[in-house]
Amino acid sequence: MSPSYQARRTKLLREMRKANVDGLLISGLANVRYLTGFTGDSSWLFLNSANCILLSDTRYETQLADECPNLDVEIRDSGSTINELTAKVVAKAKSKRVGFEAHHTTVAQHGSLGEKITAAVLVATSGLVERLREVKDKWELEQIRAAIEYAQRGIGVVRSSLRSDQTETEIRYLLEAAMRSFGATGPGFEPIVGVGPTAALPHAHAGTRCVAEHAVLLVDWGASTESGYRSDLTRVFITGKPTKQMELVYKTVLAAQQAAIKAIRPGVKCVDVDRIARGLIERAGFGKYFGHGLGHGFGLEIHEAVRVNPISEREFETGMVVTVEPGIYLPGKFGVRIEDDVLVTSDGNEVLSNLEREFDQAIVPILA
Amino acid sequence: MSPSYQARRTKLLREMRKANVDGLLISGLANVRYLTGFTGDSSWLFLNSANCILLSDTRYETQLADECPNLDVEIRDSGSTINELTAKVVAKAKSKRVGFEAHHTTVAQHGSLGEKITAAVLVATSGLVERLREVKDKWELEQIRAAIEYAQRGIGVVRSSLRSDQTETEIRYLLEAAMRSFGATGPGFEPIVGVGPTAALPHAHAGTRCVAEHAVLLVDWGASTESGYRSDLTRVFITGKPTKQMELVYKTVLAAQQAAIKAIRPGVKCVDVDRIARGLIERAGFGKYFGHGLGHGFGLEIHEAVRVNPISEREFETGMVVTVEPGIYLPGKFGVRIEDDVLVTSDGNEVLSNLEREFDQAIVPILA
Repeated sequence: MSPSYQARRTKLLREMRKANVDGLLISGLANVRYLTGFTGDSSWLFLNSANCILLSDTRYETQLADECPNLDVEIRDSGSTINELTAKVVAKAKSKRVGFEAHHTTVAQHGSLGEKITAAVLVATSGLVERLREVKDKWELEQIRAAIEYAQRGIGVVRSSLRSDQTETEIRYLLEAAMRSFGATGPGFEPIVGVGPTAALPHAHAGTRCVAEHAVLLVDWGASTESGYRSDLTRVFITGKPTKQMELVYKTVLAAQQAAIKAIRPGVKCVDVDRIARGLIERAGFGKYFGHGLGHGFGLEIHEAVRVNPISEREFETGMVVTVEPGIYLPGKFGVRIEDDVLVTSDGNEVLSNLEREFDQAIVPILA
Repeated sequence: MSPSYQARRTKLLREMRKANVDGLLISGLANVRYLTGFTGDSSWLFLNSANCILLSDTRYETQLADECPNLDVEIRDSGSTINELTAKVVAKAKSKRVGFEAHHTTVAQHGSLGEKITAAVLVATSGLVERLREVKDKWELEQIRAAIEYAQRGIGVVRSSLRSDQTETEIRYLLEAAMRSFGATGPGFEPIVGVGPTAALPHAHAGTRCVAEHAVLLVDWGASTESGYRSDLTRVFITGKPTKQMELVYKTVLAAQQAAIKAIRPGVKCVDVDRIARGLIERAGFGKYFGHGLGHGFGLEIHEAVRVNPISEREFETGMVVTVEPGIYLPGKFGVRIEDDVLVTSDGNEVLSNLEREFDQAIVPILA
């Protein structure tokens, strides 16, 4: 099984007509990959009803022939800019209203393109490809399931080899190596490994704290596949004597997560699912310690469209894949976040990740 | 020794006056780090003569207090956007002409900022912070020297343990682990490890080719320090019987690199140094196999301002650090690139990296 880039581009052409553009310049890196399979960077795709042309440079000439053998390619040399090449391609393609990706085009690029493109009007578009990417196809779900599998096997190695003298950084490297040994090409993002007070920083870097320093160890990690798809999970391990506060915080987060997951189905708004988890945490008295959104889409990128947060009015659709990751962070003490990956199905949802998540299961006593 | 963020911001305020703005919104990630030391993302800095305020969100509240204890911070919650927070801060700071970074601000962000900021005019600026970053201070040079040291020690491990059955990917992981063991926090970028035809792809991913498949092995790698600084080097190893063609290509690339390095000194134009290397490769008959620029600045990012290429009229200045990396790529056969890191000094330059680079030294026969 392999992805149908052609089918994706056909869908995009329909969206372009609705957006009233007869050409589209795609500069978002993951969007270019989604539509062509090309894994390099610094390259843009131009699409209209008669043309599909990848604009790249000589560094990628051979790689393009390998990865996208059926695609038209225009190569610039190091003496010209991608803006100049784009203007040439647009003029030849005879589009009159050329969309560009307003979220992936800088003001500087736009200014330069506007100067060079004289035969067409540039029109700002927003999220045309991202909205296609929100709903995963069968091939993409296979990739994501593989990325979850690598991540889960990897954390199994970590869990079974925790030692009191291990540092956060050592755990991070062990986890990365384990995921690679199971087939991942690497971590899906820089893993967060935090002991005690570091676990209270939602986006901490792994540092030099030892496991023995505190009873709470938080790991937020994922794997990536060769095809570029990611997974994103978080688990907390209680490596020492659990306190009543740890138990209360943990069980509150878990209850919030489970209640939110239960509510996910097509037609439900993201904001409403966020509110379920947030309300539960607020009623337990921890509202001000949960500062981030409940979850997000992921796939080729670790953060993709569909944000599950207090302001997203978007409705869930069958085929979306999102994280559900409430947390409570007590500054200077510890933090708990529990994160799973959830597929929206026609009759509700399927939790794709299946690691232990009960409080008792999180207790992993280790040798001193 | 530690960096003086205050001194950097004072210099920037001078540049702002020249650019005729009385406030500046800095959204480039590396620029924010350069001016504050903050290592998180999704955060912007607002600067004027009376204010220096980091705009962030609750995920980073504690980390900001750790990393930037003397900085004013404005934190938004997950129910508001950074654009809204920015408008509030700008209104309070009373700047009238607020610059934004045209190369780091998307058309979409700019549109949204323009709607929300009513008390000031938004003015596009370009490269104000990047130009400061072109010239490295003493502390930065220490960091870069450390990043080079980690990288050089790492490749030493690889070189001394090459085996015919090793794959490109295995070498990549070994290299990363070795650099970390010497003190790097990770690779400076995804290392390129290419055997034979893969070495002919200037930006290849490490794959499954074995060392034994071809006599040429190319490694393009670097380390990163905890402070975020990088190194960037390339070496080619001849692991089998060298052919006359390999020798010719290698010696041509090396001669081009050495001639270019010799020409680097303050006041010389980048384009002229590029021309020296390119001319030498062209006269040897390989001109069309050298498609990329000769080099680039690096530091907090692996590609920074100062591009040494056929169109850059920029002059070298004392304190700049650039790569010098000519290459010849024979599609389907092999490629050779030799890359070193060069500091521009008042009386010429200093090559910061000191690995063997002669053809004879590149021959590393391995066991079958």
